[in-house]
Amino acid sequence: MNMRDFTFYTPTKVIFGKDAENRAGVEAKALGATKVLLHYGSGSVIRSGLLKRVEEALTAQGLSYVELGGVVPNPRLGLVYEGIELCRKEKVDLILAVGGGSVIDSAKVIAYGVAEPGDVWEIFDYKRVPTACLPIGVVLTIAATGSEMSNSTVITKEEGGLKRGYNNEICRPKFALMNPALTMTLPDYQTACGCTDIMMHTMERYFSNGGNMEITDALAEGLIRTVMQQARILAKDPQDYDARAEVMWAGSLAHNGLTGLGTDGGDWMPHKLQMELGGKYDVAHGAGLAAIWGTWARYVYRDCMDRFKKFAIRVMGIPDEGDDEAVILKGIEAMEDFYREIGMPTNMRELGVEPTDEDCVEMAKKCAVSVGGAKGSAKVLREPDMLAIYKAAR
Amino acid sequence: MNMRDFTFYTPTKVIFGKDAENRAGVEAKALGATKVLLHYGSGSVIRSGLLKRVEEALTAQGLSYVELGGVVPNPRLGLVYEGIELCRKEKVDLILAVGGGSVIDSAKVIAYGVAEPGDVWEIFDYKRVPTACLPIGVVLTIAATGSEMSNSTVITKEEGGLKRGYNNEICRPKFALMNPALTMTLPDYQTACGCTDIMMHTMERYFSNGGNMEITDALAEGLIRTVMQQARILAKDPQDYDARAEVMWAGSLAHNGLTGLGTDGGDWMPHKLQMELGGKYDVAHGAGLAAIWGTWARYVYRDCMDRFKKFAIRVMGIPDEGDDEAVILKGIEAMEDFYREIGMPTNMRELGVEPTDEDCVEMAKKCAVSVGGAKGSAKVLREPDMLAIYKAAR
Repeated sequence: MNMRDFTFYTPTKVIFGKDAENRAGVEAKALGATKVLLHYGSGSVIRSGLLKRVEEALTAQGLSYVELGGVVPNPRLGLVYEGIELCRKEKVDLILAVGGGSVIDSAKVIAYGVAEPGDVWEIFDYKRVPTACLPIGVVLTIAATGSEMSNSTVITKEEGGLKRGYNNEICRPKFALMNPALTMTLPDYQTACGCTDIMMHTMERYFSNGGNMEITDALAEGLIRTVMQQARILAKDPQDYDARAEVMWAGSLAHNGLTGLGTDGGDWMPHKLQMELGGKYDVAHGAGLAAIWGTWARYVYRDCMDRFKKFAIRVMGIPDEGDDEAVILKGIEAMEDFYREIGMPTNMRELGVEPTDEDCVEMAKKCAVSVGGAKGSAKVLREPDMLAIYKAAR
Repeated sequence: MNMRDFTFYTPTKVIFGKDAENRAGVEAKALGATKVLLHYGSGSVIRSGLLKRVEEALTAQGLSYVELGGVVPNPRLGLVYEGIELCRKEKVDLILAVGGGSVIDSAKVIAYGVAEPGDVWEIFDYKRVPTACLPIGVVLTIAATGSEMSNSTVITKEEGGLKRGYNNEICRPKFALMNPALTMTLPDYQTACGCTDIMMHTMERYFSNGGNMEITDALAEGLIRTVMQQARILAKDPQDYDARAEVMWAGSLAHNGLTGLGTDGGDWMPHKLQMELGGKYDVAHGAGLAAIWGTWARYVYRDCMDRFKKFAIRVMGIPDEGDDEAVILKGIEAMEDFYREIGMPTNMRELGVEPTDEDCVEMAKKCAVSVGGAKGSAKVLREPDMLAIYKAAR
């Protein structure tokens, strides 16, 4: 028996397609909401008119609202505290995140904070487990993180620069309104980063030595192939509605759990390695992942030959001929070719950063600490492995 | 723009794996239940000891229960009325279906009936729309219908033999406990029927002329290929846990909506044609579908060439060489070869029935009425088409 037991729980009601944001009022009202916090990031949702449309959708259903903008990438605890205070004062009973992963994550932390007394940071300091969370809705504007259906959130405490993640089923959004047209104004680079992030959420789960489920693999392979195909279309025509839609839905499926069922959950070391890189150099998450992935893959594949071979053949279309190792290496190269094709880097130089040996030592040390010494499923990595990958990825 | 808008809502918490049934008490209690109706079919769940384990799981959490067995395939309204009365008398607040699709469907109708006053048949007579439904849990023992995650239920009113279906989001089960080992005792024929039904739920959605979503196709193709692969394993070794698990999970995914998103929802004429066949001859649902599919496919493929070609190449592995029509026909033949391989029929004779011309006329007439005159997406079929297919499928 190879298959691991699993729980699959995705209660988010997804409304997908043209003008989906106009359902905001109806869906919020159906949940019994009366007063909504509209949470967003920069002024782009104001300039584009999106926020206004959402406001009108709420008003049309007799709901009132207050607003809190200003969420930044790697969202901060300071704004969350502000949001909690505002929600308490205004008796908000639903938080509507209008934006991408950062806005949704910030909304989740506010929702935890409003629902129960005590400092919300205690949850991220693993000192208490929340048992309640205000209902959350989403109007999604960026396809990438999958936070719109996920149970996870990441928040940064400014003091000490502490970035912490926390997963709990109670924070899954109640509804997600996904209009692919809203993602059309994203810059090409950010679109490519999003596609990379989405593929990587699936690939992290795919490269595993723990457990096996054929149907999970088949779904994962289909998802990665589709995103590659659609990312190529978007690199040429960012206004292609269908391609935007494919990528947007793939983003939710890639991180709602579906592509990792029946296994140990996957490897996740590329994400961990990128986290330190991103912490030090402030590079885009997806680009950082692409810059590291090839080096990571070459470093670990000998410990996970079956899956790397399957990946090369089924996802990258490499013919199943000759030496297994040659097939695997061709698969890794083909993925790097794809990254270049959509304008993503395949090493740190292409990413625009040039860490010294000392920088690599520092990142490896931090990375090792962040994973408690060792992590990985394709191959378990420790500090010397991390250092070797950082150096080779330059 | 080819993609259709969609709503995706799958709130069922799935607990999948070894001894999953032992979670019955914990999950029911988490929903606030105090008194449970244990609903089941034949005595097999008693003989196997399953019912006892579920009872113990409830008792261990301080829940009490009452029982109602006797659900038959094509579940009956009479037993539903009995269940509603019992639930009201005993103040049941959660219904736990222990069985396959028929038991779950029966449980859903009882749940509608208990939650609101009035004759529950009115819902199936489309005279009122229910707004409430008692919470439902499932301990699944047969992989086939997907009712454990679906919004649909089918019930038969004995008087007049009226078989009616009704879909509503409020009846989706709150939790589904899926232990693949529970399906190991199914007879081989029933296992093959289940695999056929699961594949057909996906194929019905796949063969469509309305809308297109690449990722939906990729997931559907992966699902069908996986079920074929695993059905072959089960034909040789019915005790293969992993293969049972693959098929069980595929059954839920095939009918929870995932494999039809972004299109018009699919064709569904094979199901409709089989419904009349099943009504007249009492054949197993999956076997009836297999007996009709090849004839249906040959009748309609010219109106849906792109998809039949894609199916032949991506699902059946036919090389993309030469004439499109030849590729398509090879794909259909390959599917029929597969049916034979797992012991399924590919025509009515192999199914064990021999309808006369008059029988075919009668079934075509009934089928046409049941779909309101015409139905289909690969090709819209009317009574003469249906008659031609029934005759040719003999």
